[in-house]
Amino acid sequence: MAAEQDPEALEALAAARPLLTDLYQATMALGYWRAGRAREQAEFELFFRGCPFGGAFALAAGLRDCVRFLRAFRLRDADVQFLASVLPPDTDPAFFEYLRAVDCSDVTVPLLQVGGPLLVVQLLETPLLCLVSYASLIATNAARLRLIAGPKKRLLEMGLRRAQGPDGGLTASTYSYLGGFDGSSNVLAGQLRGVPVAGTLAHSFITSFLGTEVPPDPMLAPAAGQGPRVDLAARVEAWLDRVCAHLGRGVQEPHRGERAAFVAYALAFPRAFQGLLDTYSVQRSGLPNFLAVALALGELGYRAVGVRLDSGDLLQQAQEIRRVFRTISGQFQMPWLESISIAVSNNIGEEELARLAQEGSEVNVIGIGTSVVTCPRQPSLGCVYKLVSVGGQPRMKLTEDPEKQTLPGSKAAFRLLRADGSPLLDVLQLAEEQPPQAGRELRVWPRGAQEAWTVKPARVEPLLRLWVQRGQLCEPLPSLAESRAFAQLSLSHLSPDHKRLEQPAPYPVALSDKLRALVASLLAGGSS
Amino acid sequence: MAAEQDPEALEALAAARPLLTDLYQATMALGYWRAGRAREQAEFELFFRGCPFGGAFALAAGLRDCVRFLRAFRLRDADVQFLASVLPPDTDPAFFEYLRAVDCSDVTVPLLQVGGPLLVVQLLETPLLCLVSYASLIATNAARLRLIAGPKKRLLEMGLRRAQGPDGGLTASTYSYLGGFDGSSNVLAGQLRGVPVAGTLAHSFITSFLGTEVPPDPMLAPAAGQGPRVDLAARVEAWLDRVCAHLGRGVQEPHRGERAAFVAYALAFPRAFQGLLDTYSVQRSGLPNFLAVALALGELGYRAVGVRLDSGDLLQQAQEIRRVFRTISGQFQMPWLESISIAVSNNIGEEELARLAQEGSEVNVIGIGTSVVTCPRQPSLGCVYKLVSVGGQPRMKLTEDPEKQTLPGSKAAFRLLRADGSPLLDVLQLAEEQPPQAGRELRVWPRGAQEAWTVKPARVEPLLRLWVQRGQLCEPLPSLAESRAFAQLSLSHLSPDHKRLEQPAPYPVALSDKLRALVASLLAGGSS
Repeated sequence: MAAEQDPEALEALAAARPLLTDLYQATMALGYWRAGRAREQAEFELFFRGCPFGGAFALAAGLRDCVRFLRAFRLRDADVQFLASVLPPDTDPAFFEYLRAVDCSDVTVPLLQVGGPLLVVQLLETPLLCLVSYASLIATNAARLRLIAGPKKRLLEMGLRRAQGPDGGLTASTYSYLGGFDGSSNVLAGQLRGVPVAGTLAHSFITSFLGTEVPPDPMLAPAAGQGPRVDLAARVEAWLDRVCAHLGRGVQEPHRGERAAFVAYALAFPRAFQGLLDTYSVQRSGLPNFLAVALALGELGYRAVGVRLDSGDLLQQAQEIRRVFRTISGQFQMPWLESISIAVSNNIGEEELARLAQEGSEVNVIGIGTSVVTCPRQPSLGCVYKLVSVGGQPRMKLTEDPEKQTLPGSKAAFRLLRADGSPLLDVLQLAEEQPPQAGRELRVWPRGAQEAWTVKPARVEPLLRLWVQRGQLCEPLPSLAESRAFAQLSLSHLSPDHKRLEQPAPYPVALSDKLRALVASLLAGGSS
Repeated sequence: MAAEQDPEALEALAAARPLLTDLYQATMALGYWRAGRAREQAEFELFFRGCPFGGAFALAAGLRDCVRFLRAFRLRDADVQFLASVLPPDTDPAFFEYLRAVDCSDVTVPLLQVGGPLLVVQLLETPLLCLVSYASLIATNAARLRLIAGPKKRLLEMGLRRAQGPDGGLTASTYSYLGGFDGSSNVLAGQLRGVPVAGTLAHSFITSFLGTEVPPDPMLAPAAGQGPRVDLAARVEAWLDRVCAHLGRGVQEPHRGERAAFVAYALAFPRAFQGLLDTYSVQRSGLPNFLAVALALGELGYRAVGVRLDSGDLLQQAQEIRRVFRTISGQFQMPWLESISIAVSNNIGEEELARLAQEGSEVNVIGIGTSVVTCPRQPSLGCVYKLVSVGGQPRMKLTEDPEKQTLPGSKAAFRLLRADGSPLLDVLQLAEEQPPQAGRELRVWPRGAQEAWTVKPARVEPLLRLWVQRGQLCEPLPSLAESRAFAQLSLSHLSPDHKRLEQPAPYPVALSDKLRALVASLLAGGSS
C-alpha cells in the first residue's frame, strides 16, 4: 500500500473546481452583492434528513475533499470570464472584480457547519453537497455490506467501470474503503488516496491464448533461487496428467489456451499466481489447469495464492473447489494448497453476499462492483445545505411542507453515551448553550416524540469539530486509513438494534429545551 | 451559450487518466509482456447486452471523452513508479521501461471496436468502460424523460449535488443534454462542454432577508434607459397594495423578508427577474410578492421571466398561478404577464413528469435532479469490453453461462432501413464480408429467433465509423450540440413500438450467415 499523496498538482486534479456549481449560486452572489450584503456573516448547515437504505445509521464522509476544495477555492480569470458570459451583459463590472478576490480565508467550518461571508458561503453550497453526499452514501453502503459479510471476509470494491465517469469511480473507491472494504481494483485510488489495490486477470487474458504461442522464455528458477531453471510449461503438462488421473478426467478436456494463459501469468507472477477458473468450464478445464500450474509452481517452492470465480453458483462451486483442494493437497503433499484463497465476483448484492458469508462458506474474498458503487437500493442521499443564521440572527425556512422545514440558529451537537460507551442519543442545541454534563440529568426533546425525555449521560462527546478557521486548517486531517478505523470503531459501539439492516430501531436525535423553544417561537411568529 | 472549449489544459483535467483503471489491467500487461505478446494485434469490442430501463433503445454516448482519453494516453513517471510499487518487487525493470513508451499511436477505433497492440488495448478496458457506460446510461435516461415530456417543455438537469462526486456531475450534465435536455444548472458543464446553463435563486437567498435591510442603492432606471430612476422598493410597496386588493388578501400577509429578497434580486437582474414562490406560502406570500415586484418592473418597461415552485402539488399550483397571471395581466394591462414561464422542481421522476406534461398543463420548465442523474430505475449499464480477435484469429468466450458468451471476430455493423427511413433491423457481420446492398434481398439471423429472416432494405447505413486510426483523429468530432441533434434525429426515425417506454417491441439485431456459422463452429469445436 502506498502512502497517501497530496501534492498541489494532484490536489488541483482531484478536488472540485469553483465553477462545479449550480448557476443560481452565481446569480445569488450577484444578488447579495447588489444588495450590499456580500460580507455579512452567515452560517449554513449541511445535513441529511434520513439515513439511507432504510437503515438507522449513516457514516458522514467527504471531509477531506471538502477541506481540499475550500483551501483551493479561488475563481480564476477564465472562470470569472465565463460567469460574465452567462450573467446579464449590463452587470456591473465591479461585481466581477469582487469575485476575482473571493476565497475562503474568512470561512470557518466545523464539519459541516459553514460560516463566513454570505456571498462566499452561498457559493460553496453545490460543491460541498456534491463532495459529501455521495461520499457519505457509499461509505454507509460499504458499512452495510461489511456488516453483512462479517469481519473475516476480504471485501474488494471493483466498480470503477460502473461509476458515474472518472471521478465517480475515484470517489467510490475511496469511500467504500473508508466504509469498511479492504481495498479496490482502482489503481488511481491507490495512487492518489492510498487505498490498497488488488487485481489479477480477466477472461480476455485467457481467451487471448490459443495454446500454440511460444513463450520467449518458459524457464523459471526455483523460489529459493538455488538449483537449475526448469521449463514451467513442460512441468505443467506432466502435472496435468497426474491431476487428471486423480480427478478422473481425460487429459484432453482442459482447454490448452487457458493452460497457456495460466502458465504465462505464472511466469510473470510466480509468487502471486491466481487462476480465473470459469472462462470455459470450471470443473472440466479451469480447475485442472489451475491445479497443474499450482503444483508445478509448488514443486519449485512457490505457493499459488488462489482462484477466482466469476459466474454460476459461487457458493456451491467454492465448496466443491475446497474439497478438491483438500484431497489434492493430501494426495500430493502440498498442505498449503488446502487453504488458498477462493475469490468470487459477479453482480453480488446484499442478498447474495449474505449467502456467501454464511457459516461454513469456503469463500474468502468477495469482489463487489455495481451494487457498492451505484447503491441501487437508494442511489442518492438527500443532503441539503440550509441557511441557519445571518448577522447572528437565526433563520428558518417556514415552508408549508413540514418535511422541508429547517432548524434555525447556529448550533452545537453532542452524543450522549451510556456507561458502557454505547450511544444513547444525539442532542442538538444552540451554540450559546452550556454543553451537556456527564452524570447530570438533562431534559431533551427527541424528534418525533410527543414528550420530553430526561436522560443522564455517563459521557458526552461533542460531534462538531472545528477543521477550518478563517480559511486555515486547525489540525491535520486524519489519513484515510485512520478515518476508516474511526468509522469501524464508531459502528462497533452502536447497539445491534440500530445496526440491524432491516427495520432497525431508529436512533434518537433530540433538541434542547432552548432550541425547541426557538423553533416554536419562529413558527408562531410566521417569520424568521 | 458559450462555445465548447477544448484547450489542452482543460482536456488534461477533464479526461480520465491512465491509472484510472483496474489493477488487473496492469497485471495482465505484465503477463502479456512476459509472454512476448505485448505487440500482437488484437481487437476488443465494447458493447452492452440489453437496453436499460426495460426499454428497447439506448443512446450510445461517450465518444468524445474516449477520444480525448486515447489521444492523451501516456503513463507518466509517477504512474509507472506507482505501478512498480504494487507489482511484485522482482518484476523485470524492462517491463516498466516498456510501459513508459506506451501510447495509443497504434490504436484504431471505430466506436467502439478498439484494435491495436494487445498490451495497450487491454490497458484501455476500464477507462473506456467508465467513459462510455454512464454516459450512455444517462443519455438514454434523458431521452426517455424527453419522450415523456414531449418536445415543448423546457427540461433542465439540476442534479450536480446528487452525482457521484465532481466528475459524476460533469458527465451527468453533459450527457443529459446530449440525450435531449435543454440545459443544466452546472456551470462547469457550461464552461467546459458548452452546455447551456440556467439558474436563479434558492430558498436560502430568500430566508437571508428579514426585510429590515437597507439596500445601498434601491434606484432603478427604466428599461429603455430614458427617464428618471425610481426607488424600486417603494414602487413595489405601492403595487403590493393593488395586488392584495385584487387578490382579496391583507397587505400584511406577504412576508416582507421574501419581498426584500425579490427586490434585491430584481435590482441585480431587472431583465431576468424570476421569483421562487414557496419559501413561506405560495398563495399568501410568494405569489403576491412576486406580482408586486413584476408589476413594478413592468411599469419601468422590464418583463419578469417567470416563477419557480419547489414543493407541494406542482401541477395544481401551476394551474392556479396561471389563472392569477391571466386576471392580473388583464386588470393591470400588462399582457406579457399572462404567459410568463412557470418552472417546477422537487424530486420529479418519470411518473410525475408525465403528470406535469399532460394536455393543458401550465408548466413550462421542469427541473430534474436526482432521477436523471442517478437513473434510479437502473443505476448502471452493463457495458463490457470483450476480446474478439488476436493476430487476426477470432476469439470467443465459451463459458458455461450462455449469457456471458461473446460474438467472435472483427465485425462490421449496418442498420437496414425501410423506404420511409425507419430502421428495420441492425445486422452484425464479419468485417471481411460484403456490406448489405440497398434493394437487394439478404438472409439474416435475428438474435433470439429460431429461423432466418429474409429482408430487403431500402437503404443501408454503416454503424461503425472510424474515428481514430493509428492514434490520429480521422475527422473532427461533432460538437456536443451536433451530437444532441443527431441523437434526436435518430430517435425520431425509430418506430413508436420500439420507443414505447413500457414493454416496447424489441428492436431486432441479427447476425449474418457467416458470423452465425463462425459462432456455431467455435461452439462445436469447444475451442477458439
